[in-house]
Amino acid sequence: MKVTALAGGVGASKLLAGMVRALPPSDLTIIVNTGDDIELHGLHISPDPDIVTYTLAGVVNPATGWGLEGDTFRALEVLARYGREAWFHLGDRDLATHMHRTALLRTGATLTQAIDAVCRAWGLEARILPMCDEFVPTILETDRGTMHFQEYLVKHRVEPVVKSIRFEGAEKASPAAGVLEAIAEADAIVVCPSNPLISIGPILAVPGIRAALRARRNCVAAVSPIVGGRSLKGPSDIMMRQLGYDAAAKGVARMYADFCGRFVLDESDAAQQDAIERMEMRVLVTQTVMCAQSDKERLAREVLVFATSSRAGEAGA
Amino acid sequence: MKVTALAGGVGASKLLAGMVRALPPSDLTIIVNTGDDIELHGLHISPDPDIVTYTLAGVVNPATGWGLEGDTFRALEVLARYGREAWFHLGDRDLATHMHRTALLRTGATLTQAIDAVCRAWGLEARILPMCDEFVPTILETDRGTMHFQEYLVKHRVEPVVKSIRFEGAEKASPAAGVLEAIAEADAIVVCPSNPLISIGPILAVPGIRAALRARRNCVAAVSPIVGGRSLKGPSDIMMRQLGYDAAAKGVARMYADFCGRFVLDESDAAQQDAIERMEMRVLVTQTVMCAQSDKERLAREVLVFATSSRAGEAGA
Repeated sequence: MKVTALAGGVGASKLLAGMVRALPPSDLTIIVNTGDDIELHGLHISPDPDIVTYTLAGVVNPATGWGLEGDTFRALEVLARYGREAWFHLGDRDLATHMHRTALLRTGATLTQAIDAVCRAWGLEARILPMCDEFVPTILETDRGTMHFQEYLVKHRVEPVVKSIRFEGAEKASPAAGVLEAIAEADAIVVCPSNPLISIGPILAVPGIRAALRARRNCVAAVSPIVGGRSLKGPSDIMMRQLGYDAAAKGVARMYADFCGRFVLDESDAAQQDAIERMEMRVLVTQTVMCAQSDKERLAREVLVFATSSRAGEAGA
Repeated sequence: MKVTALAGGVGASKLLAGMVRALPPSDLTIIVNTGDDIELHGLHISPDPDIVTYTLAGVVNPATGWGLEGDTFRALEVLARYGREAWFHLGDRDLATHMHRTALLRTGATLTQAIDAVCRAWGLEARILPMCDEFVPTILETDRGTMHFQEYLVKHRVEPVVKSIRFEGAEKASPAAGVLEAIAEADAIVVCPSNPLISIGPILAVPGIRAALRARRNCVAAVSPIVGGRSLKGPSDIMMRQLGYDAAAKGVARMYADFCGRFVLDESDAAQQDAIERMEMRVLVTQTVMCAQSDKERLAREVLVFATSSRAGEAGA
């Protein structure tokens, strides 16, 4: 069974850590958000691909969900001495990843190739693809001015009020090599529990991807990143409310309804099942909050079974 | 008294550490070799300017004479995992310097400006100038092929036999802003005890610098980097022998005789005084081996007095 996942960073990685135990990792393709990418200190930083890579390699910092376990921050101290912006946490070992990726990009590699080189170095069997090779930064208009998503998230700690979001240059980007094929050929497509606005949103903004997903709607299963009206990780709920979305699982379902035929809802949100089913989505109600590794693997298996199950009278994908 | 020094890395820094105690540091301009510069992992690395900066800032690793004291090498371990060449020792804190310099260069700063920014961040009052803004790498022809000087020095540990040296692009380079003025206006010009071939040589290869020094010959005092036929630091003696030079203080004096009117000789080489004087150089015989800080300061004072002294019947510069 070939599985393709759409992923942001920390939230997605929990489910993906279960996925690679629930199926042979080489059968998994992960299309990762690169709208979070940012250039700092001359380095091309790809937070979400790195989070997914480090998590699947078993070397992620378990306390934060990003960065390398046991990393130090000595370079960052000296960068601050040089008056450079030091709000983005760059660990010393982690820096090597950014240096390697940047050096590869500068010598003509695509982002797809650079991300693949990093994955291979960590021994990953799952395939990680960026949504596109182009730099498509997520820019927020807020009550404190225009800023990159990382500035909003890390520098300003989610304090500014978001007025609008844009993915700069997305309209001119193309899906990275392999992305449309991975969507077309998968037996199941899983939308990970990531921020619908700034993790899944940028992926959907790359021309061609949303249409490719629509063509596979019955095979697409999304796991809600919102449980009990709150995001499990990150500012999804805050951003959704500020932008006028319904900050609830059913609000996420509404955003995905055109391309997503199946929705995984937490038990605590079971009351929203009817509303979501009225969007012509099949609903799986289960425990979606992942703490232990066993939770991740169980949920991954349940999602895969759900995504590939057919009901009497229903056509396959 | 305005003093200008020509410097390589570790050997020069010892004398310079004395200089900044022997005169107000703001009266010292140091023209540093950048022929050692190398681009690695997408970073522009300037070993000699950094050695001088770190030494004068009091933060150099005292055990090696290069790098930052107490630095760690965690990024380098991960660079090795990525299959990148890890033979050049890049400390984690040191990396911040290379990142800052590279980012400045990429956003349009000159090397002079980038080096100045690093110096100011460390609170240096002495002025450090690169010999030129252009990238003029020192390339060696050896019995093991063509290689950058850093590859010869660090990767191959001085094992290849050197057949010739070139400073690639030097003929098209220009002295960095301030270099010719610093030579023209100095009361004393000190050639530090650095490798004449690959530390002082590149500086002299920048068109206009050697001629500017010749015009100040009587104010130029060189300190021999060779004592008792051996270099105090680095491969000067080995390289000189392999290239057919006289690997002795007087051999260095011969290389400098056209632009250098004064030569500082170690007591153990006193027998070479006559030979050097026959090159129309005045000679100071003293203890030139610097171990303690007091040695550095004493030698610096002696060199400054010697460089500015006049003899009856002799015209000043």
